[in-house]
Amino acid sequence: MVNETQHTCSASSSSKSDGGSSSGSESSKDSSRCSTPVLDAERHERLREKMRRRQDSGDRWFSLEFFPPRTANAAVNLISRFDRMGAGGPLFIDVTWHPAGDPGSDKETSSMIIANTAVNYCGLETILHMTCCNQTKDDITGHLQKAKRLGLKNIMALRGDPAGEEWEEEVHGFNYAVDLVKHIRNEFDDYFDICVAGYPKGHPEAESYEADLKHLKEKVLAGADFIITQLFFRSETFLKFMKDCQAIGITCPIIPGIFPIQGYHSLRQLVKLSKLEVPQEIKDVIEPIKDNDAAIRNYGVELAVSMCRELLDSGMVHGLHFYTLNREVATTEVLKRLGIWKEDPRRPLPWAVSAHPKRRVEDVRPIFWASRPKSYIYRTQEWDDFPNGRWGNSSSPAFGELKDYYLFYLKSKSPREELLKMWGEELTGEESVFEVFTCYITGEPNKNGHRVTCMPWNDDPLATETNLLKEQLEKVNRRGILTINSQPNINGKPSTDPIVGWGPSGGYVFQKAYLEFFTSSEIVTALLKVLKKYELRVNYHIVNVKGQNITNAPDLQPNAVTWGIFPGREIIQPTVVDPVSFLSWKDEAFALWIEQWAKLYEEESPSRMIIQYIHDNYYLVNLVDNDFPLENCLWQVVDDTFELLN
Amino acid sequence: MVNETQHTCSASSSSKSDGGSSSGSESSKDSSRCSTPVLDAERHERLREKMRRRQDSGDRWFSLEFFPPRTANAAVNLISRFDRMGAGGPLFIDVTWHPAGDPGSDKETSSMIIANTAVNYCGLETILHMTCCNQTKDDITGHLQKAKRLGLKNIMALRGDPAGEEWEEEVHGFNYAVDLVKHIRNEFDDYFDICVAGYPKGHPEAESYEADLKHLKEKVLAGADFIITQLFFRSETFLKFMKDCQAIGITCPIIPGIFPIQGYHSLRQLVKLSKLEVPQEIKDVIEPIKDNDAAIRNYGVELAVSMCRELLDSGMVHGLHFYTLNREVATTEVLKRLGIWKEDPRRPLPWAVSAHPKRRVEDVRPIFWASRPKSYIYRTQEWDDFPNGRWGNSSSPAFGELKDYYLFYLKSKSPREELLKMWGEELTGEESVFEVFTCYITGEPNKNGHRVTCMPWNDDPLATETNLLKEQLEKVNRRGILTINSQPNINGKPSTDPIVGWGPSGGYVFQKAYLEFFTSSEIVTALLKVLKKYELRVNYHIVNVKGQNITNAPDLQPNAVTWGIFPGREIIQPTVVDPVSFLSWKDEAFALWIEQWAKLYEEESPSRMIIQYIHDNYYLVNLVDNDFPLENCLWQVVDDTFELLN
Repeated sequence: MVNETQHTCSASSSSKSDGGSSSGSESSKDSSRCSTPVLDAERHERLREKMRRRQDSGDRWFSLEFFPPRTANAAVNLISRFDRMGAGGPLFIDVTWHPAGDPGSDKETSSMIIANTAVNYCGLETILHMTCCNQTKDDITGHLQKAKRLGLKNIMALRGDPAGEEWEEEVHGFNYAVDLVKHIRNEFDDYFDICVAGYPKGHPEAESYEADLKHLKEKVLAGADFIITQLFFRSETFLKFMKDCQAIGITCPIIPGIFPIQGYHSLRQLVKLSKLEVPQEIKDVIEPIKDNDAAIRNYGVELAVSMCRELLDSGMVHGLHFYTLNREVATTEVLKRLGIWKEDPRRPLPWAVSAHPKRRVEDVRPIFWASRPKSYIYRTQEWDDFPNGRWGNSSSPAFGELKDYYLFYLKSKSPREELLKMWGEELTGEESVFEVFTCYITGEPNKNGHRVTCMPWNDDPLATETNLLKEQLEKVNRRGILTINSQPNINGKPSTDPIVGWGPSGGYVFQKAYLEFFTSSEIVTALLKVLKKYELRVNYHIVNVKGQNITNAPDLQPNAVTWGIFPGREIIQPTVVDPVSFLSWKDEAFALWIEQWAKLYEEESPSRMIIQYIHDNYYLVNLVDNDFPLENCLWQVVDDTFELLN
Repeated sequence: MVNETQHTCSASSSSKSDGGSSSGSESSKDSSRCSTPVLDAERHERLREKMRRRQDSGDRWFSLEFFPPRTANAAVNLISRFDRMGAGGPLFIDVTWHPAGDPGSDKETSSMIIANTAVNYCGLETILHMTCCNQTKDDITGHLQKAKRLGLKNIMALRGDPAGEEWEEEVHGFNYAVDLVKHIRNEFDDYFDICVAGYPKGHPEAESYEADLKHLKEKVLAGADFIITQLFFRSETFLKFMKDCQAIGITCPIIPGIFPIQGYHSLRQLVKLSKLEVPQEIKDVIEPIKDNDAAIRNYGVELAVSMCRELLDSGMVHGLHFYTLNREVATTEVLKRLGIWKEDPRRPLPWAVSAHPKRRVEDVRPIFWASRPKSYIYRTQEWDDFPNGRWGNSSSPAFGELKDYYLFYLKSKSPREELLKMWGEELTGEESVFEVFTCYITGEPNKNGHRVTCMPWNDDPLATETNLLKEQLEKVNRRGILTINSQPNINGKPSTDPIVGWGPSGGYVFQKAYLEFFTSSEIVTALLKVLKKYELRVNYHIVNVKGQNITNAPDLQPNAVTWGIFPGREIIQPTVVDPVSFLSWKDEAFALWIEQWAKLYEEESPSRMIIQYIHDNYYLVNLVDNDFPLENCLWQVVDDTFELLN
């Protein structure tokens, strides 16, 4: 009989389990497996394994290269771009390294910190470039140690440009990329996946094309896992290079570097830097339209699409690496036309997962941070145990301090003037705050004609799922139930459902209805009376800024509010309402009133005092309807409350 | 505002969490809670806490006293009695200690081993009696250490009877129960809950009733947690005693010992031993009917019921302790008439939980042992981590050895002759085996007129839940799909459902359809072809006695097949199909063919060779239909298989 096991599970160790194979009972008993449910096998894999898996399955993929931004504002924009381009499903991104720009520092614009943000907060598999020439061994080791500490797992090992005009070899120094590869393997064993650069036309400084191929082979023999090539203009250039590599025994993956031409000047600059020659047939097209950016970009997209098609059709290429120049449009367009941009790829879990290796077993989070996943990741970054290092476990470290809110990647994307237009130049009372919440829900312009597209608790417009509740949300916000988080109940929808689905195919997802809001103490008093009628069915937590806390949660247990049942797997319950962490969230949620809203206004101004009043006197309430198969009763709870008040 | 938290959670530490109380945010963040889902708060509590909880809630309860049996057969019967009487919901049972009977030994009839079985295999909270007079400190410490090692948590500390006729005090020895109480607290701190005896009429050897009360107070001051009294014949006797105790400051629970008169001789013997006097009004009734056992028992039940009613009505008594004399009928009758026998109490989980303190966090088991829970507990007794020490975790100890099958508590309750009548004096071929399986399913008599009430894999008749599948099971067993384990799919029934419900009220329970059977390799070959059509929907494991193993389980992950969603709690998934532990179960399941069935017949006999052939050549198959909201497709899979064969 044949072994029909179709999957293997590579856990953190590099050895593969073979538990499903036809084997005697003795050896079978020894087989081990991942200790946590595996929804997304790739999440547990190293980059080189992911590449191999894609190659084996024939799935085509892409990756994206970015350079570090110059200013903090540009960094905020770049991170939004990571989120948007991450939605297309790149296998990885990489961040370049420029020795002159202090790339290993803690500055919010450094290569190191940008790569850290991509991995930890945007959940992207990331390669950090690193150059070695003109640097001491200690500096390089320091950079690598820091990268490892931050959860970076992949390094692109490069020589870098010489300091002066002339190239001088340093004895015992780092003269070539191969020295850096060897150093990484010596000092960090197999921890990092290492990428090196390949030159389809040969490195401009190499003695010959053949000599350069030999250097490349040395880099691979020294421990590189795969190769990304310099850009090129004709598919034949790459395919010949690839065959030549194979001929001398280079067997690791070689990924073509694709440069969609986006403008006349950027092309000229890149060509100058890379010492490449632009083929005459391309020059012939570009020169006449050099002042028409749109025309050049259209041509660039056409050119890239047809070259990529040739590469993919050759059967030798599975992945394409894009030099984005930090721009979105051209690359996205090429990817979409090639059909390898996977918009809305299957979400492995209903929240954005972090790509930090420590967090790969994380499969549950409190619902409170649903709209602030980066804040949650930041505040739990010191935890070293997921998911067992849970929020209420006294042995696990507390949530990170609140003072670090204003890390640039938690900043609002909107400037002060825009926020004032949305949230009101001048507030006249609590009702004008109700109005802001209501406009955010409805999407209608406020009385000054501006749409409210974000709130202190939500940096983005209403989620598609929340839209299902729009009508009821509008009604209650108008009356002072200021909602910041909610989800409808779901009684077993397919895991492939475009709105509420997540996890692998063939499963079913469930939710308990959830509603979280700020409201006045008057409403809370009535609400508590109403809730007595809903004991058992509705769990609640009600807390004010001073920490006065009213709850009916049994035994301080978390309440699972999102879960999924999948073929051949244990139950996954990725979202819970957790009574203990709610008190940490409460601090954050109340602080946002002041930090993001009140501080838009002058001290002592009436507007500021209104927000301060709400902050000081309102309660933060969350409600769960446990009876998920029935119609959501939370709206009835709110209606009953208002009725009682009248 | 009032603190509305309604439950607290006492974890393994003795301190209580107060996380739900109205408190500032700082202290609230420090609150901790049980690290695992709490379905049944009592499961995490010590006996004294359970008693307090019942007292606070006004729930009435009972407990049952047994003595160790003389023979191994009697032990098997006693354990069945534990299971049956355990179904009525005693708060605890206790096992007496007779120094002459080697009570601390490893014999299957010793007090120690009987108590161990009650805790670990029957899941009963258990008190082990222990006497101290005429024993060395080392012996006593040894017994206590052993009790602790076995998971016993409660000791009834007694003096015991003197060795000779005359009582002699030993200097530095154990002369009174209070010495034993002190010793336990000195050597084991707060580990054990300690019970002591109270004498409503005063101890027969005490100088006076008042002096005896003082001795009792000394025992409580030395660390006893509660008191069980000697039997008495009038409720006034107990109520006076209780008031007298309270008057001198004894505040711990005092539980009246109830002795339902069951026969003339047992009454006389007990009275002689306890040096009590039977009241004249009782003698007057009994003497004339002393040869009519039934009449005496009926009278005894009447008497006990009316005395218990008086005790409960007094408002001073919440629990009743029954001296059962290892008999079932009278005590059960009294309890039923009092309305405190809680037949079919809510199952906290869909399988019988063990009361061992190590296992109180156990909330998941492989489905394979569903009909052999004692075997599962035995085979995992060395594990010290539930549920994290899972079956596939290479760091957890393997399943216990198979050779220990024949521990007396895993024995079949039926003798060989009875098994032969059920399973066939003489088998004529595989079809006669099919016939046995079919008769077990249908409940119809076999061709010799005997009903098949047990099978090697099932010691009891078909479970109520399995009855739902009876018709289909009959059909497939007739054709050689020899089923040993199955469950229907359930798509969200209330947790209070009388057949499939479990866990607290207000929840919903779910199941995936499961079918496990032995079958021939011919059928397996066809089945595998059919299963290709059901990929993703149906997970399967197919293994033979040599361990050849065919499965489509992804990543060797367990597949949750029973789960429950409850108000305010995390998801519980108590039953899984686990690919790794299946290989341990396989060894046990195949061995049962030989050990329990083949060995009924002479070596070399045709009947024995038929069973041996099945053992050597059949496959053990399990199937899970992952699509629990749809109609169970496993019957279709089997039908398709037979169709393919024809």
